[in-house]
Amino acid sequence: MSTGGTIEKTYDAFSGVLQNRVSVLDVMLGSLELRGIVIDRLALMNKDSLDMTPDDHALIAETAQREARTHDGVVVVHGTDRLARSGDATLALGVPPVPVVFTGAMRPFELRTTDALQNLTEALLAVQLTAPGVYVVMHGQALAFPGVEKDPRAGTFIKR
Amino acid sequence: MSTGGTIEKTYDAFSGVLQNRVSVLDVMLGSLELRGIVIDRLALMNKDSLDMTPDDHALIAETAQREARTHDGVVVVHGTDRLARSGDATLALGVPPVPVVFTGAMRPFELRTTDALQNLTEALLAVQLTAPGVYVVMHGQALAFPGVEKDPRAGTFIKR
Amino acid sequence: MSTGGTIEKTYDAFSGVLQNRVSVLDVMLGSLELRGIVIDRLALMNKDSLDMTPDDHALIAETAQREARTHDGVVVVHGTDRLARSGDATLALGVPPVPVVFTGAMRPFELRTTDALQNLTEALLAVQLTAPGVYVVMHGQALAFPGVEKDPRAGTFIKR
Amino acid sequence: MSTGGTIEKTYDAFSGVLQNRVSVLDVMLGSLELRGIVIDRLALMNKDSLDMTPDDHALIAETAQREARTHDGVVVVHGTDRLARSGDATLALGVPPVPVVFTGAMRPFELRTTDALQNLTEALLAVQLTAPGVYVVMHGQALAFPGVEKDPRAGTFIKR
Repeated sequence: MSTGGTIEKTYDAFSGVLQNRVSVLDVMLGSLELRGIVIDRLALMNKDSLDMTPDDHALIAETAQREARTHDGVVVVHGTDRLARSGDATLALGVPPVPVVFTGAMRPFELRTTDALQNLTEALLAVQLTAPGVYVVMHGQALAFPGVEKDPRAGTFIKR
Repeated sequence: MSTGGTIEKTYDAFSGVLQNRVSVLDVMLGSLELRGIVIDRLALMNKDSLDMTPDDHALIAETAQREARTHDGVVVVHGTDRLARSGDATLALGVPPVPVVFTGAMRPFELRTTDALQNLTEALLAVQLTAPGVYVVMHGQALAFPGVEKDPRAGTFIKR
Repeated sequence: MSTGGTIEKTYDAFSGVLQNRVSVLDVMLGSLELRGIVIDRLALMNKDSLDMTPDDHALIAETAQREARTHDGVVVVHGTDRLARSGDATLALGVPPVPVVFTGAMRPFELRTTDALQNLTEALLAVQLTAPGVYVVMHGQALAFPGVEKDPRAGTFIKR
Repeated sequence: MSTGGTIEKTYDAFSGVLQNRVSVLDVMLGSLELRGIVIDRLALMNKDSLDMTPDDHALIAETAQREARTHDGVVVVHGTDRLARSGDATLALGVPPVPVVFTGAMRPFELRTTDALQNLTEALLAVQLTAPGVYVVMHGQALAFPGVEKDPRAGTFIKR
């Protein structure tokens, strides 16, 4: 399930800026070797999370919970700036029946050096190995909600 | 802990072949963003696993078990052809007190398209999330020994 | 000689935008294999060419002409939007004694897919093979000033 | 026109070696931005040049000369070990009416770090800028036959 964020930003040579226009998630998935996993792709929105409204966070939480009832796990690709808000909103609806794993990136996949593929790789594995709950998984760690927040200076997530 | 294998093969422009000469594990680790993980590197050997002797497998198993007594987890980078043999040997010494995760690659890190970084990323996360035991982790799945073997035609590992 | 432009833009994970802060020209040069070439690097400015003033164009032209008197060729890395203006200014000072080759990129070197390395590679070779004059070299072609302009829709340079 | 060589070697995960099986030249050309150039592709052979016979060198020379009569330039992708032999054979048939540029690579395109794209980029530009003749173009230099040979220790070509 993809919602946009830095991880999916692409470069427009005409305007010279990075924007959320096309989902690059399919390209990323295509570059990974994944055995024994069937992925249903759901493109919910494609937004910089700084532009997300309360309705967006509610929609993400409800959709994650709904998908959790019919899948073995849910991975949500999300902008990091408001990721914790969507994670908290998801958990506020109750502990989901399977793991719901949020992930994102500090540097877009389009860049030569990026944490996007690493974080997606980790999320796809963590969703198979963790107990039911809501998590952010990136940068080599899996943190369970509640109490998760972005540390903008360190450029990653921490537990309060 | 590194033992060699395809994942670490480098290209020698003089002879034109891929060989196990230099450990590229440090380069791979340097390209990942890892938070809250301290890694002790142990370069045990640098062999194509097809060249491993029974003594090599025994040494790998004993070293993995020994390191498992003083760390929260052990990742073993290993050639895929004889990986299952080292995994079986490790488990034959008993269930280790922490996860011991074997990983490798079908295509060297030196190649433009490779599963090396994906597999190392997965191993480093799985070692934090799995129960004590011996595993192979690559291609989006974590398989517990015993009963693991390489499927050479599919180019991955399966459970018997 | 570098002046900035898209080719040198780097990504700032904190603000999430691409900017001209650090010259990546040294990284690009380090990734090429160049035999029999000695390069004197001159970091003149690091500007998006849309921000260049008439004084900037004059400074670039004068510096290129000055360096042309003491080198076998001069390569100027420049933003594409105002590259033609600097090229015209250089030729307005007279045909230089050696080739002066302007180059740039439509997509920054920092991106996974970029024309930056291709264009720099071409510029470094063209400066050895062309007659004295002022050129823009990128995208597989060498165009001699005057009469060169950027075609923003095609994303390249053309001869009027 | 492609003949094989290191530049085109691909990795076979089953056997674990680099071989000349598929021409990767189309992938390389697709990754470059080339304006105002029309390329006719001719896949003559796909051989490690160490395996080339005198007949192979003769065929390459004759084909290059034939294509030179109907094109503005000819680029020949060739293994570096016997490249000079094919270059000498081409010139022995006479100075061609347009530039014939040989190029190759010390490290296959399939590798993460490779000189393949740089050399192909240079060859495609040099063939537009040089006088009629036979050349090897790679590593930032264009060397005219006769008198060109590979320096295996330096990993490049030199003029005797």
